[in-house]
Amino acid sequence: MHRSRVYAVLIDTPESEAAKAADFWSAALGVTARPFPPAPEFTTLHQALPGLVMAVQAVDDAPRIHLDIETDDVEAETARLTALGAEQVSQWQECRVLRAPGGHLMCVLPVETDPETFKAQANVWS
Amino acid sequence: MHRSRVYAVLIDTPESEAAKAADFWSAALGVTARPFPPAPEFTTLHQALPGLVMAVQAVDDAPRIHLDIETDDVEAETARLTALGAEQVSQWQECRVLRAPGGHLMCVLPVETDPETFKAQANVWS
Repeated sequence: MHRSRVYAVLIDTPESEAAKAADFWSAALGVTARPFPPAPEFTTLHQALPGLVMAVQAVDDAPRIHLDIETDDVEAETARLTALGAEQVSQWQECRVLRAPGGHLMCVLPVETDPETFKAQANVWS
Repeated sequence: MHRSRVYAVLIDTPESEAAKAADFWSAALGVTARPFPPAPEFTTLHQALPGLVMAVQAVDDAPRIHLDIETDDVEAETARLTALGAEQVSQWQECRVLRAPGGHLMCVLPVETDPETFKAQANVWS
């Protein structure tokens, strides 16, 4: 048995435009953009979406938006999603990058939310 | 004065893969996929995200994810977002398609949520 939930919506933006994108989304959604010093490629958009994290991520790739799925068992969640048709594309630190049927990227990562919220909101997979 | 809020996260998927994508996201997120007969290009993913609509949209284009912004004044919201740096790309029914700085598409559309929820959750722009 393991659990997972949607954790975040990431606005992946070419590095040269990431600061401009963070300024835009901050003003567009009426929220504060905050740098995240441990990982400077991220700028969080505080409380932009109800119950989810939203952030601009500077990437060396074309613009896209992806979902992060947090889980208490990255191996089991990756196996569940690949059995549903996703393909693992890469591994980045503790995160697995998958491509969903239809072509969209998603990341599977260890739980980031506080444990009580995670347990209350996550789906349980057996 | 007008109001706006994030209304939806749309998983735009090439038409030939849209059914497969809807099946995947439904199973991946543990929610029910429902066709939307008035606009058959949409398959809603019921309660996939807290407080937001999520749907797969069949498109004649590459896979992408975009945000919908609902507003009580499409003209004023479009003007606000273009003043922040977005560019209007097209118009589709009552919706305006904009490209944000950084390259991501977004749609501005008339209020879809019930009026009380919209008023309680929307930002007010003067």
